[in-house]
Amino acid sequence: MKYPSTINNLIECFKKLPGIGEKTAERLALSVLDLNEETINLFAKSLKDSQTKITKCKHCGNLTETQPCPICQDKSRDSHLLCIVEESQNIILFEKIGTFKGLYHVLGGLISPLDGINPEDLNLSTLPQKIKDEEIKEIILAIKPSVEGETTALYIKKMLENTDVVVTKIAYGIPMGADIDYIDPMTLSIAMEGRMKIS
Amino acid sequence: MKYPSTINNLIECFKKLPGIGEKTAERLALSVLDLNEETINLFAKSLKDSQTKITKCKHCGNLTETQPCPICQDKSRDSHLLCIVEESQNIILFEKIGTFKGLYHVLGGLISPLDGINPEDLNLSTLPQKIKDEEIKEIILAIKPSVEGETTALYIKKMLENTDVVVTKIAYGIPMGADIDYIDPMTLSIAMEGRMKIS
Repeated sequence: MKYPSTINNLIECFKKLPGIGEKTAERLALSVLDLNEETINLFAKSLKDSQTKITKCKHCGNLTETQPCPICQDKSRDSHLLCIVEESQNIILFEKIGTFKGLYHVLGGLISPLDGINPEDLNLSTLPQKIKDEEIKEIILAIKPSVEGETTALYIKKMLENTDVVVTKIAYGIPMGADIDYIDPMTLSIAMEGRMKIS
Repeated sequence: MKYPSTINNLIECFKKLPGIGEKTAERLALSVLDLNEETINLFAKSLKDSQTKITKCKHCGNLTETQPCPICQDKSRDSHLLCIVEESQNIILFEKIGTFKGLYHVLGGLISPLDGINPEDLNLSTLPQKIKDEEIKEIILAIKPSVEGETTALYIKKMLENTDVVVTKIAYGIPMGADIDYIDPMTLSIAMEGRMKIS
């Protein structure tokens, strides 16, 4: 005796999502029965739409339903300033802050030879041409501080050394409000290295 | 700037499920983009089916796609023995063990006046007639040990006091393999009360 096949199918589908195990999938599948018709219809439609409507922006690699994406289409943004991020969701975070007014470029990962991710697997090949076409003056690397992040940053820096573009990276250090006692040694050492003169 | 509307819709739908907050919903919605077409189609179809195909068994209240449910249809089971459970998913657990060969009856909750759940909100009204029709000899209450569980058990016992049916409840006590040092006082006191002679 098992659940009706519809519920079993829902359990199997939920289990395919990250961090969802057997028990959670079961709980989620049963809770679907409490959703109203409107939500169910929207849920089912959005799942299908995710396959058909969502594509990567041909300019920046961002997830989008239009080509190019709304950010690349926005003429009020500074196209000479390019912020390189690992994933599309990083863009959302920067846009929530709202202070960055340039364009983005999504790598789709970080160089990690151990995981079989090489430079050619990233969205990097179009970068030199883009820099020329858009007359980009500064590239900001907004990549997480890790071995993979540093490797990727170095690779991009090297790739662009024959161009006039300035390559910067966002500051790594102690986050606002953090207690220095609880900061890991790696962050502390990066924060020390990146110290700035108080003006 | 936000996600494309499809992803926003997915986030909203995931957030309607229990225990899923903003961040988790975002992660799940983005991970949907990595599912293959087959899974997406099954997922969307199962969501729709959950509205149309899943009903409650008219006999026992179990979730089912057939009327009556496969358990009530099974003529090899002992129809004189009825196990009362709180929720459909409890049946799955008992069926996994496979030792119980009677039929089930799903209450759909426990009496809890504080939460506004009264006896008439539970699947109880058909019980007396069912006992007569099926010539039920024993009713096993497989309800969790809690104030609500005890209240519900007492209510059912009282409701059936003019019938010949024997009302039992599953044993509450120390679970197998548990260390007595770590058992809560309530369980320990129930275990002490329910002590049995070693034969």
